[in-house]
Amino acid sequence: MSAGGEPDGQKGAAGPAGGRLVVVGLGPGEARFLTPQAAAALAEAEALYGYGPYLDRVPLRPGQARLASDNREELGRARAALAHAAAGSRVAVVSGGDPGVFAMAAAVMEAIEAGPAEWRALDVEVVPGVTAMLAVAAAAGAPLGHDFCAMSLSDNLKPFELVEKRLRLAAEAGLVMAFYNPVSKARPWQLDRAFDILRGLLPASVPVIFGRAAGRPDARTVIVPLAAARADLADMATCIIVGSAETRRIERPGRPPLVYAPRAVRGAAGGAS
Amino acid sequence: MSAGGEPDGQKGAAGPAGGRLVVVGLGPGEARFLTPQAAAALAEAEALYGYGPYLDRVPLRPGQARLASDNREELGRARAALAHAAAGSRVAVVSGGDPGVFAMAAAVMEAIEAGPAEWRALDVEVVPGVTAMLAVAAAAGAPLGHDFCAMSLSDNLKPFELVEKRLRLAAEAGLVMAFYNPVSKARPWQLDRAFDILRGLLPASVPVIFGRAAGRPDARTVIVPLAAARADLADMATCIIVGSAETRRIERPGRPPLVYAPRAVRGAAGGAS
Repeated sequence: MSAGGEPDGQKGAAGPAGGRLVVVGLGPGEARFLTPQAAAALAEAEALYGYGPYLDRVPLRPGQARLASDNREELGRARAALAHAAAGSRVAVVSGGDPGVFAMAAAVMEAIEAGPAEWRALDVEVVPGVTAMLAVAAAAGAPLGHDFCAMSLSDNLKPFELVEKRLRLAAEAGLVMAFYNPVSKARPWQLDRAFDILRGLLPASVPVIFGRAAGRPDARTVIVPLAAARADLADMATCIIVGSAETRRIERPGRPPLVYAPRAVRGAAGGAS
Repeated sequence: MSAGGEPDGQKGAAGPAGGRLVVVGLGPGEARFLTPQAAAALAEAEALYGYGPYLDRVPLRPGQARLASDNREELGRARAALAHAAAGSRVAVVSGGDPGVFAMAAAVMEAIEAGPAEWRALDVEVVPGVTAMLAVAAAAGAPLGHDFCAMSLSDNLKPFELVEKRLRLAAEAGLVMAFYNPVSKARPWQLDRAFDILRGLLPASVPVIFGRAAGRPDARTVIVPLAAARADLADMATCIIVGSAETRRIERPGRPPLVYAPRAVRGAAGGAS
């Protein structure tokens, strides 16, 4: 942690108990997105905790323990990893994308806050990664090139009324929107409800980008106007970007369109930044 | 580009004119953030275009041309790079952080839309990177762990009234906020005005994170309550994260605090995602 002016030289030092916990982002898919910092953190760990499919992406290392858990067990996984680190081990918690965006880092912090005092004495580090919306945006052009928001559409941990309120305010603000967790078997209707709300507030032509399995060999990007956006174009592996009234779509002969957010908004004083 | 269902095998193929343009994100600072995908794209390029300090981060390669320009000349740089690629070369435009977030990818798209038809026939790819707010968030804990927005505070390309409107709506929505381009010599008062607006809408205790030179050896993270947030804590190399009323701060003995966004919001149905 470099927060609060801690000297750089202290980074990576073991905590009072000798243990260390690092929360590592793998990026959106293949190894080509894994930063050298993340690769080093994974190689140094004595034990890896994570959702099974994420652990499967990490190269095997002799003597390194792997403790897979279900993707619904974030808090339990965080507690187990912290207890393991507090016993004096170098432990890594593995996360897809960036661990700080709708992923494991918040669960680890929550476990630290509610846990025994010794967990606050641990050396804890978060290693960032390329989060899904950045890979989806890159595959489509530059739809996040100006002001935007990122929201989880899941109502497991917040009321759907709050999702609806945020959608309305984000549309009023003219923000491009990235949706994480857009649908699941337990949440079949929420995404269509979100599109219906946005159709009442934004032009029908606003581009909506469905980025499935971004960064993986089976990646697929589908771009439709808001008028044609439907929940059955998404699944749990999809990140969705909804443009704003400012969003542009460039048609290209023989190539997919490019979608981007102009740098200038109407009414600007002009000039570069 | 994998947009629109283009087969994966076509990725990286030269366009009809033989030229190719790739917009590459270096991540927030040191080489430890550079993805293998970005490193490969840089190595393959015959010419690199970019702001000088970003080009200086790219390892030298014999025979590779480097064309540095001022950071105010984004559109001119994009046009020059596109013209170079259209002449049949493999050209890379280098960007700090992620090229799609307040960076070069939108300028390249804008140039393509306004440029000659042959630029639409070019093979264009965006290679994502770790954007500044993710590195700042990682250094502080997990403040972007739930719904958030990212905004440029610059009023060079949009009226400041729109910045103010977005601040008010984002606060009403309960979104955590990341500010890019928070201050410059030409924009000395806007950031304090933004803090004043937020002080009227959010609790005085909301944590504000000033992340300077994230990912660089001189990185510095300062965390203050909103009541004490001042523009002179920031400069052009700073990315700022303003928490929400839900944001938590964990005090730790002998270590900097951890700041995070809880996964659950009051009123949730409960259960995991």
